[in-house]
Amino acid sequence: MKTSENQNAIFPQGQKAPQYFSGDAFVKMLIENPLLNTTIGNVVFEPGCRNSWHSHPGGQILICINGTGYFQEKGKPIQLLQTGDVIQIAENVVHWHGATPDSEFTHIAVGPNADKGGPVWLDPVTEEEYNSYRQENA
Amino acid sequence: MKTSENQNAIFPQGQKAPQYFSGDAFVKMLIENPLLNTTIGNVVFEPGCRNSWHSHPGGQILICINGTGYFQEKGKPIQLLQTGDVIQIAENVVHWHGATPDSEFTHIAVGPNADKGGPVWLDPVTEEEYNSYRQENA
Repeated sequence: MKTSENQNAIFPQGQKAPQYFSGDAFVKMLIENPLLNTTIGNVVFEPGCRNSWHSHPGGQILICINGTGYFQEKGKPIQLLQTGDVIQIAENVVHWHGATPDSEFTHIAVGPNADKGGPVWLDPVTEEEYNSYRQENA
Repeated sequence: MKTSENQNAIFPQGQKAPQYFSGDAFVKMLIENPLLNTTIGNVVFEPGCRNSWHSHPGGQILICINGTGYFQEKGKPIQLLQTGDVIQIAENVVHWHGATPDSEFTHIAVGPNADKGGPVWLDPVTEEEYNSYRQENA
């Protein structure tokens, strides 16, 4: 499904992410001037798209609002994310997230402790890492 | 529209709020054990339902995900909230929110600074206060 065909989207699609994603993702920040040291953004991943390994100095909360996605913390297996799931990612924990191979995936990203700084980006997620969920759950 | 008829809900409906609401509202907390000093909940207001005047010691962010709602800070006119709107409410600012008379309304409520404590509840919103939007925008 192309994002532009998603007529049920809650938020505007936003800009295509220029880097740190494998595949097409669209990012829309929903707060211009954070009042409570907390940022809110919406991210749409097209099928197969994921971001690179990264961490957040202030941690992150993901609220899954459409489709099916993957989430992985370094050293743990990939976790399947369904619409309605909410996950908390501790400060400085290395992880990645994105869509499954066959589904678009949309999450709201809540960034507490914004004054601690933005994400720290690391290596892209390899095909082997991305495909490990299917191999382990085949 | 009855909430039970909403087949597109992202989150489970949750429990009917026992107090501090005029009309029927359903509250579902989405994080059991806050890791980042931030709570996340989902609130569904049936048409005409609103909460009482209140404030949050740690502030609040509302992410509107379905329907049309009202929001008012003490001393200011009612503001119309549409699906996709995100508003920030400063610490200790007295306010209320809820559905418009003719639409169900759903928002995610983000509670930063959870260690500062839960909401401080005040008086119910009167019919005159609730109806002021229609009177001023007739």
